Amino acid sequence: MTDTDLHEACGVFGCVATGAWPTQLDVAHTIYLGLVGLQHRGQESAGIVTSLGAEDSKFKTKKGMGLVTHIYAEEDIAKLKGNIGIGHTRYSTQGESEIQNIQPFVVETEHGLIAVAHNGELVNAKSLKKKLLRHGVGLSTGSDSELITQLLTHLPECGEPQGLVNWVGRIKRIMAETLTSYSLVIMHHDKIYALRDPFGNRPLCIGKLYPAAAFSGKKVISDDDVDGWVVSSESCNFNSMGARYYREVLPGEVIELSKEGVKSVYIAPRPNKAPPAFCIFEYVYFARTDSTFEGQMVYTVRQRCGRQLAEEAPVNVDIVSTVPESATPAALAYAEKLGIPYGEVFCKNRYIGRTFIQPNMRQRKLGVAKKFGVLTENFRGKRVVLIDDSIVRGVTMVPIVKLLRAEGAAEIHIRIASPPIKYPCYMGINIPTFQELVANVVPLEDMPSHFGADSLQYLSVDGLKKAVREGIKNPNGSVGHCVACLTGEYPVKCDDW
Amino acid sequence: MTDTDLHEACGVFGCVATGAWPTQLDVAHTIYLGLVGLQHRGQESAGIVTSLGAEDSKFKTKKGMGLVTHIYAEEDIAKLKGNIGIGHTRYSTQGESEIQNIQPFVVETEHGLIAVAHNGELVNAKSLKKKLLRHGVGLSTGSDSELITQLLTHLPECGEPQGLVNWVGRIKRIMAETLTSYSLVIMHHDKIYALRDPFGNRPLCIGKLYPAAAFSGKKVISDDDVDGWVVSSESCNFNSMGARYYREVLPGEVIELSKEGVKSVYIAPRPNKAPPAFCIFEYVYFARTDSTFEGQMVYTVRQRCGRQLAEEAPVNVDIVSTVPESATPAALAYAEKLGIPYGEVFCKNRYIGRTFIQPNMRQRKLGVAKKFGVLTENFRGKRVVLIDDSIVRGVTMVPIVKLLRAEGAAEIHIRIASPPIKYPCYMGINIPTFQELVANVVPLEDMPSHFGADSLQYLSVDGLKKAVREGIKNPNGSVGHCVACLTGEYPVKCDDW
Amino acid sequence: MTDTDLHEACGVFGCVATGAWPTQLDVAHTIYLGLVGLQHRGQESAGIVTSLGAEDSKFKTKKGMGLVTHIYAEEDIAKLKGNIGIGHTRYSTQGESEIQNIQPFVVETEHGLIAVAHNGELVNAKSLKKKLLRHGVGLSTGSDSELITQLLTHLPECGEPQGLVNWVGRIKRIMAETLTSYSLVIMHHDKIYALRDPFGNRPLCIGKLYPAAAFSGKKVISDDDVDGWVVSSESCNFNSMGARYYREVLPGEVIELSKEGVKSVYIAPRPNKAPPAFCIFEYVYFARTDSTFEGQMVYTVRQRCGRQLAEEAPVNVDIVSTVPESATPAALAYAEKLGIPYGEVFCKNRYIGRTFIQPNMRQRKLGVAKKFGVLTENFRGKRVVLIDDSIVRGVTMVPIVKLLRAEGAAEIHIRIASPPIKYPCYMGINIPTFQELVANVVPLEDMPSHFGADSLQYLSVDGLKKAVREGIKNPNGSVGHCVACLTGEYPVKCDDW
Amino acid sequence: MTDTDLHEACGVFGCVATGAWPTQLDVAHTIYLGLVGLQHRGQESAGIVTSLGAEDSKFKTKKGMGLVTHIYAEEDIAKLKGNIGIGHTRYSTQGESEIQNIQPFVVETEHGLIAVAHNGELVNAKSLKKKLLRHGVGLSTGSDSELITQLLTHLPECGEPQGLVNWVGRIKRIMAETLTSYSLVIMHHDKIYALRDPFGNRPLCIGKLYPAAAFSGKKVISDDDVDGWVVSSESCNFNSMGARYYREVLPGEVIELSKEGVKSVYIAPRPNKAPPAFCIFEYVYFARTDSTFEGQMVYTVRQRCGRQLAEEAPVNVDIVSTVPESATPAALAYAEKLGIPYGEVFCKNRYIGRTFIQPNMRQRKLGVAKKFGVLTENFRGKRVVLIDDSIVRGVTMVPIVKLLRAEGAAEIHIRIASPPIKYPCYMGINIPTFQELVANVVPLEDMPSHFGADSLQYLSVDGLKKAVREGIKNPNGSVGHCVACLTGEYPVKCDDW
Repeated sequence: MTDTDLHEACGVFGCVATGAWPTQLDVAHTIYLGLVGLQHRGQESAGIVTSLGAEDSKFKTKKGMGLVTHIYAEEDIAKLKGNIGIGHTRYSTQGESEIQNIQPFVVETEHGLIAVAHNGELVNAKSLKKKLLRHGVGLSTGSDSELITQLLTHLPECGEPQGLVNWVGRIKRIMAETLTSYSLVIMHHDKIYALRDPFGNRPLCIGKLYPAAAFSGKKVISDDDVDGWVVSSESCNFNSMGARYYREVLPGEVIELSKEGVKSVYIAPRPNKAPPAFCIFEYVYFARTDSTFEGQMVYTVRQRCGRQLAEEAPVNVDIVSTVPESATPAALAYAEKLGIPYGEVFCKNRYIGRTFIQPNMRQRKLGVAKKFGVLTENFRGKRVVLIDDSIVRGVTMVPIVKLLRAEGAAEIHIRIASPPIKYPCYMGINIPTFQELVANVVPLEDMPSHFGADSLQYLSVDGLKKAVREGIKNPNGSVGHCVACLTGEYPVKCDDW
Repeated sequence: MTDTDLHEACGVFGCVATGAWPTQLDVAHTIYLGLVGLQHRGQESAGIVTSLGAEDSKFKTKKGMGLVTHIYAEEDIAKLKGNIGIGHTRYSTQGESEIQNIQPFVVETEHGLIAVAHNGELVNAKSLKKKLLRHGVGLSTGSDSELITQLLTHLPECGEPQGLVNWVGRIKRIMAETLTSYSLVIMHHDKIYALRDPFGNRPLCIGKLYPAAAFSGKKVISDDDVDGWVVSSESCNFNSMGARYYREVLPGEVIELSKEGVKSVYIAPRPNKAPPAFCIFEYVYFARTDSTFEGQMVYTVRQRCGRQLAEEAPVNVDIVSTVPESATPAALAYAEKLGIPYGEVFCKNRYIGRTFIQPNMRQRKLGVAKKFGVLTENFRGKRVVLIDDSIVRGVTMVPIVKLLRAEGAAEIHIRIASPPIKYPCYMGINIPTFQELVANVVPLEDMPSHFGADSLQYLSVDGLKKAVREGIKNPNGSVGHCVACLTGEYPVKCDDW
Repeated sequence: MTDTDLHEACGVFGCVATGAWPTQLDVAHTIYLGLVGLQHRGQESAGIVTSLGAEDSKFKTKKGMGLVTHIYAEEDIAKLKGNIGIGHTRYSTQGESEIQNIQPFVVETEHGLIAVAHNGELVNAKSLKKKLLRHGVGLSTGSDSELITQLLTHLPECGEPQGLVNWVGRIKRIMAETLTSYSLVIMHHDKIYALRDPFGNRPLCIGKLYPAAAFSGKKVISDDDVDGWVVSSESCNFNSMGARYYREVLPGEVIELSKEGVKSVYIAPRPNKAPPAFCIFEYVYFARTDSTFEGQMVYTVRQRCGRQLAEEAPVNVDIVSTVPESATPAALAYAEKLGIPYGEVFCKNRYIGRTFIQPNMRQRKLGVAKKFGVLTENFRGKRVVLIDDSIVRGVTMVPIVKLLRAEGAAEIHIRIASPPIKYPCYMGINIPTFQELVANVVPLEDMPSHFGADSLQYLSVDGLKKAVREGIKNPNGSVGHCVACLTGEYPVKCDDW
Repeated sequence: MTDTDLHEACGVFGCVATGAWPTQLDVAHTIYLGLVGLQHRGQESAGIVTSLGAEDSKFKTKKGMGLVTHIYAEEDIAKLKGNIGIGHTRYSTQGESEIQNIQPFVVETEHGLIAVAHNGELVNAKSLKKKLLRHGVGLSTGSDSELITQLLTHLPECGEPQGLVNWVGRIKRIMAETLTSYSLVIMHHDKIYALRDPFGNRPLCIGKLYPAAAFSGKKVISDDDVDGWVVSSESCNFNSMGARYYREVLPGEVIELSKEGVKSVYIAPRPNKAPPAFCIFEYVYFARTDSTFEGQMVYTVRQRCGRQLAEEAPVNVDIVSTVPESATPAALAYAEKLGIPYGEVFCKNRYIGRTFIQPNMRQRKLGVAKKFGVLTENFRGKRVVLIDDSIVRGVTMVPIVKLLRAEGAAEIHIRIASPPIKYPCYMGINIPTFQELVANVVPLEDMPSHFGADSLQYLSVDGLKKAVREGIKNPNGSVGHCVACLTGEYPVKCDDW
């Protein structure tokens, strides 16, 4: 993607130390590392909540705006010492007044404190909210996380014995009322509940923390070696903390983490035996390439997309290149498949942040692409195909093509390793409006001239599905992906919108 | 008071423009000026919420940590443009993580948004909270304001017709459940409800905004001239915004402000015909001297305290002085009453903030009072009486007396224009613990030697009451003041503590 | 003064520990306390430079924008540990780019590092600068301090033996070249040179640091008890650090401070036996009232100004009051002299900083004085005289008088305890332009109506001189004061301007 | 390079609008874009100085700490409007107190203001400084830039006619006194002087700003189309501002830029016909790959290094990879040359900044590489060769190899596309101390085991020279490169060290 047009909403993380408490494991530091590794899922704010896990333990909280490494200093992590904890990293389109929205969301309930971290977006948030308001609850943040938390606490007729709370029971009821999309991490007392919605729209997986000795090479890692357990939106952070991938949380599954370990306590059914609807864009763009979903590494899937693209839309050129840097795996595979040399044509300026000053009139006339330097000698006089993973608004592609042409590219072809994005997402992805999506305003046949390219082709929806699915090993039950933004077919009726 | 030992919790403010909307009156700027003038009641954070006042109007909010003049820039006030709004300024003993506690508290309810600003402390907060949690509400801030707001919204069985909300009815019910202490400003739609608890423990008064022309001298102000109405914890800010004191909100009274003007809608009864319990320390220390309570200016009451002190505890000295600067009115009156010259002995350093570096060993040994310079020529060789309004921990008084003596004062006497503080306050004032109150650990007869003074005397409780009450004009119903911190007699049973 | 119209440029401070080094005295903390006590002389930036005082000692420096208590945290003071050091606090009209101008100014010279702190303004700066530039020196800050420092180091033909530096010799030469105005504190190696210009235009005095034990009351302070020596623009900070006033640095005198103590090394002559020209506004407005100049406390001088004003300009009123708070000593003395009660009519809002939002149209029409509340009951129906120490632009006085009148004052008279300010200052005081000075644009007879007052009178120049001089004890040589801003008679020709 | 062990000191930039002044060209914005594109040469502070270019024009300056995009907002650029200007971006090892060191360095001289921006380090700075100090100049910053500026201004015996300054004459004299290393941009009045030291140790090149129309495609660019001229440490920023590469400033050459255009005014000779000594590490690591030196693109040189490495040190593996991301061009070329597939094994976390919390004990034991995720599926069971551009301390390489091995790499070989770094640089590069350089403490034969690799080989010095030189087109005079950090042979005697 040549510009930051799509935004993942969030990353969630949880950690429990196993064995005797107080633990030697630095739970707060583990969560910190977890959030650093989920930073690509949200860079605007983050929060960590830990606890000693005793019934009357207070929660220790530290939240802030900005990157995880900016929010937390060594002494913050020291103050967050605990046996159990959860964290969250978040992208937001709202301003500073939204400090109160930073997750995890912590509330005091009749049964003690709970903390909730949420990734996703409830498709029936409006009607749930209306229901809750009708019960007299006032909502102070407008976030789905508060909604979920109040739903969890506010179940007056829930049939629990006096003074006892049955969180799993409550979670089940919420899962019945709202089918997607959410991956949730909920901390109460000495337990973390981790769950994915019945459609499995957002990812969530489990990692096992091994003792440091297990990594020293002096000892073979055994299944009994365990310091603790983590749950995370993605597995890419596991290596940084000494964890290993254990397995995914299944669509609809509720996992309980405690000092005794990991326990699957429930799997919510989908209506009418519908297939799961895991967001296919996690493969295409959002996830870090070293994360694993459905038994396969994201990088590998992107390579397959590139290979599939080579089959569907080959082109006779001198060099295969990419717009740095999310499309590199696809481009390398495309080149290899067609036997064309891979070569870089752009050099990215790593120091350009969001605050880059707007182009003046001269800049606009020049149409230059400020974020990219061009490696002229690599492509002058050559026919180039640019591989990109996706196109959303396509704003940056125009000056990029212009720049290559001005610097002497003989031909410029564009190949996109995913289908055209045409529909809004109601399940947690921030997509521009209908009119901003270039696929809705420029007919396919006009795209080459729109971008100034010699040709342009997308991967087909079927091709994308094939590329994604052919590597799924040992599928847990049925397989299915949400391609709503490509086809308009949503997993559930989004009647609120 | 020689050190900042007592803290008022909050100031509340509300403003409604009258006549046709959109108004020409700058409601946001008026609230800003209101908060600037209430800054002495809380300096750690502040918030303003405004609205156009239409049924579906969104609230505009800007909150921040620090002084009002630091939080709001010109463009913030411009963005807050509205026809109606409330504000809050707050003192807090908690840290940065408490950003979420900044008031006004805004929540979405079934009946639209409401905003609540609160001054005080609910004596039965614990039991109210327990009740609310039992109904399944999760509380996210731990503040009384959230508690009040959730109580207001969460009244499922309140007998209102379907879809209609009766805020006054709800307010009545809450006033019946919690008798003190609170002054509240509640904004919903196009109305502000302003109320004091039945005991009138915290102050609240009404001001009338006149058109600018009314102040030009060219025109006599008539009762029909009105731009809007304000409610404020104190009246000291009225002049700054072109408002004039209208009247106090009575103990237990609920006032409705709208574009139609001001309306008294309810007066809550007190149990067993108990007298009101307006906090007497508002007169002694908290309020700004130009505020008016019960028909009398605070400055005048402090003068009467000084005069009463002169009667109860005269002393034969050469000069009457004060510890800058809250005790000056009492000291001037004490001097005048006894016919002794008034003279300043201290010069305050205005630039010492909270961040002053802790004294090192040498400093501690020196015992010097960093905040005060001494005006040696004014007292060398003279007998001095220092008037203070109150003593809490008495920590600063020790080095002050030492300093005066080192610089040549012949005798140093201390007179306190209020009685000894001995008991905790459960109604909104932050008082040090029992053991920190010097009156609890140093017997009266040992106080002179404790402070290094030649003599020390307090004003009596009866003397204070007399000084306060003899200027109350046209009392609205019965008169009564809370002196719990002096006598231990609380207006209501504080069974939670 | 009713608004902050005049600005002192700077405060300078130096400290040397006596006896064996490394010293136990916390030199950095002493300087910190010194600067806190000089904060009223400049609030925009501050700097501290310390050294172990060995020949090859590096300087430790910490400078910053803002108040001293904001710039320095405990760890900063710890890092500045040294045996000798100087500090500076500064007011500046320039913006953030002027960070480089924060003093003390530190330079590396052939003879090692020197640090220079300067209070004042060189009247012949332009010609000195031209001369220096002609020698090929490039000046990077535009400040007089850099100019002085480069003059000190850049004396190629100075006749010193090879490799040896004679700082006193260099200082003498500079004092011959520029007669005023400067008080300087210069640190090199193990010595501080402290000097006043020959006219003594800016103040500077010496304090002696006693051991803490000397203050414990258990021991009589003897002359042999000494921990170190300080020099300071004013003596008001001495108490805070355990120092006592020793004596003034005389006009033209150069003092050397070292671990051996204090030594007077030179007194520069004035041309034609001219009298000194100590800035009379240090007494009138700039200095803190507990500082001592020429053997008398500033507060006492201001009282004499009030008494003299009562003689020159009495008025028949019911109450004498003041615009808080610099005029209080004059007002108290004026009241006492005329036998009229003193009473406060204003209550200052302590929380209004520089960032107060500009008044909107309504505010301007209202003409209200935002910084002041009015103590209506104290003056309603009464005849009031307002005493002020000086009037510069007079901008705030207009709404103040209007406010008092609107609140019911029967008559309002103004008396100023100093003469009209009419001329620019070239010696370090920031005075508004000619046209901004109200005394230059409003004829004396029109002033009452300009301010809306019933009458207005100033103190005479002779009256001010008399009030200042009659308390000077044991004058060191001849006495003289600069009254250039009142009469236009400058101590030296300011040909640069 | 696997960690940020080497630091380039600075980037310099200058811009002059040609034709009639005031210019339409946004000079300040052009400099801003120039600095953004030089950000990789220094990320700690930056400064821009512009001028209208008239004889009495004041300089407009804005400097700050941090990245260029953080320092400058739109309004800053607007305020810097000018016809001519220079900029600087800087890396520093010193702390916040060094704000005064931010370049460009601006000084007032007898001949008006000059501004100086410097990249490099004077090898004889110490003796130059001593000489200058002996002339009585005080130096306030300790930087080479101030030294150069004072040398420029302080030439008393320079034989210029009275009142006239001959900057080129002065520059010539300085170039005779200090041979390396510096690339300088000096602004005075309406001219910029841009020069490289006689050895050409630091880069500097010239770009020509074309009118926007020239890029619109509607018009062929002609040599007469020109909006202005720029000089820059590297050419990589030219595209962003609508400039095209014109030519390099030659070693020892002095260029004058004015509204009339570009003029070569002097070429300083090297002693004894020595060859130039352009820093070879600009090719190896520092420069952005799209910059051009000596007629060749940096990327191309790095590819040749990879090819040369393949010749010198081939290895039989399944996959060629790289440590992201500076070594990618070398790795791609290495792979292609040997006919082995190129594949990525690491995924870099882009959000890890400098403030990353130090590893705790567990982390240290784990030895995990926090900045890298591993693309396990790409290398499990395979033999891998990792290409890196250079190794300095080698600290990160250890856990990286450990990580690959733990994740299943069958063999891990290391190939470095440059020779071992063994000697300090006195010419502007921040190299760790002798003992920190792994090549000095680990014998070559022990390196594989030190890093846990199966083999390790470096490129030879001759191989590097060959790779660099074989693409130099049309060499301007003799060709030569500084390889002092590899061989210890310095271009000039560095007797100060």
